[in-house]
Amino acid sequence: MAKPRAVLFDAYGTLFDVYSVGLRAEQLFPGRGARLAVLWRERQLDYSRLVTMSGDPARYRPFWELTERALRYAIQALVPQAAERWDDYAEAAASLMNQYRHLSSFPENREVLQALRAQGVTTGILSNGDPEMLGIALRSAGLDGLLDHVISADAARAYKVSPTLYALGEQATGLPRGQIVFVSSNAWDALGATWFGYQTLWVNRANLPFEQLDTQPTATGTHLRAVLDFF
Amino acid sequence: MAKPRAVLFDAYGTLFDVYSVGLRAEQLFPGRGARLAVLWRERQLDYSRLVTMSGDPARYRPFWELTERALRYAIQALVPQAAERWDDYAEAAASLMNQYRHLSSFPENREVLQALRAQGVTTGILSNGDPEMLGIALRSAGLDGLLDHVISADAARAYKVSPTLYALGEQATGLPRGQIVFVSSNAWDALGATWFGYQTLWVNRANLPFEQLDTQPTATGTHLRAVLDFF
Repeated sequence: MAKPRAVLFDAYGTLFDVYSVGLRAEQLFPGRGARLAVLWRERQLDYSRLVTMSGDPARYRPFWELTERALRYAIQALVPQAAERWDDYAEAAASLMNQYRHLSSFPENREVLQALRAQGVTTGILSNGDPEMLGIALRSAGLDGLLDHVISADAARAYKVSPTLYALGEQATGLPRGQIVFVSSNAWDALGATWFGYQTLWVNRANLPFEQLDTQPTATGTHLRAVLDFF
Repeated sequence: MAKPRAVLFDAYGTLFDVYSVGLRAEQLFPGRGARLAVLWRERQLDYSRLVTMSGDPARYRPFWELTERALRYAIQALVPQAAERWDDYAEAAASLMNQYRHLSSFPENREVLQALRAQGVTTGILSNGDPEMLGIALRSAGLDGLLDHVISADAARAYKVSPTLYALGEQATGLPRGQIVFVSSNAWDALGATWFGYQTLWVNRANLPFEQLDTQPTATGTHLRAVLDFF
C-alpha cells in the first residue's frame, strides 16, 4: 500500500469520549445514567442515518440539532411521563447538552497529533459534527492548532457512511483516498471509510468485535498511537 | 386526506414479533437472552442502513444474510471468546436463525387482514425481508393467502428508509402514495414512510416515544386493528 500522506480522524468516540456524559446523566437520572448515555448515542446515529437515507437534502439538520433531538427521545424513552411534561426535563436536557459540548478528550490525542505533524503528515478531522460544535470541542480540548483540516458533514449535508461525506477528505487534502489514513473508534465508521477506499485504523478501545460484513479495516489498534505505525 | 385504497404492512416487528427469539436466546445464553435479542435487532438494522448508505449496490446483501451477520456480531459482542472459537457457537447461531425463520405472528394479524379484504382494500407487505424469508414467515403464520402483494427490499437492492424501496409500493399497487396506508410498529419506519408521502399508522405496542424529528405519523395506535379506523 502507498505510504499515506495524511491522517483524518473521526471526532465523536475517537478524539472525544461520547460516554463521558454518563456521570452527569447518572446524577440527573440515578440508576439510569449509563442506559441514557447509550440510548442517546444510538439515537443520535440513527437520526443521522435516517435523514441521510431519506434522499431529501431538506431533511438534513446539523448534528447538534440531531443530538438534541436524540437526547429528547432518550429521556422520553426512559421516563414516559417526560413526553407530557417536557418543561420539567428541559433543564436536565440542557445540562447534558452542555456536557456534550465539552466532552472529555482522550489523553493521547495531543501527543499523536504532534508526532504526525513533526513527520510532515497532514492532519484533519472528518466528522458528522457541525462546524460550530467541532470548533468548540477542539478549542476546549486545546487541539485546534494541531489540525490542518476540520471537515464537517455540514458541507455535504450528508452523514456517515455516505461516500459524499468521505469524499470531502480527498477534496480538502488534495490527496487520493489511498494516501489517506482514516482513524475511527466506531467500527461502522472504519467500515464505511474502508468501503470508500481510505486506509483505515480502527481504534478498538472497548474490545468489541468488528462489523461482520466481510470487510476488515487496514489495521486495528487499542489506542490512537497505533496510527503512528502507518509511517 | 384521500380515502386510502390499499394498506401495506411492515413485516418484522409489525406482523412478526422479532423479540420472540428471546426465549431461545435465554436458553442458549442464560442471563443474556434479552440483551442478545436487542443487540441482534439493532445490528440487523444498522447493517441494512450501512450497506444502503454506502451508495454501492454491490454492497447489498439479502436481509437473511444481514440477519445472520448481525447475530454473529451480537454473539461475539456478548461472548468475546466466540470470535476465536466460532465453531463452538455456530450451532447456537443456527438454532436462533431457525427461530427467526418462524417468528411468532401477532394474534390480530389474520382478523385485520380479513376485515380489510372484506372491504375491498388491497393488502400487502413492504419489508426489508428478502422474498424467501418473507414467504416462509407468511406461510408459517398462515397469512400468505391474505396479501395481494409481497414487496421486498430485494427488488430495490436498498433498505428502509430509502425512498427507492417505499416507491415499490406505488408501483405494485398502481396507486399514488397518498392513497396508501403504510403500517409499522417501528417508529423510524413510520417516519420514513411519512416522509415518503404515505398515510401512516404507527403501531406503538411498547409505549415508546415517536422519533423526535418534527414529523408525526398520520395516526398512532396500540395494536394493528387501529388500521381499520382509516376506512
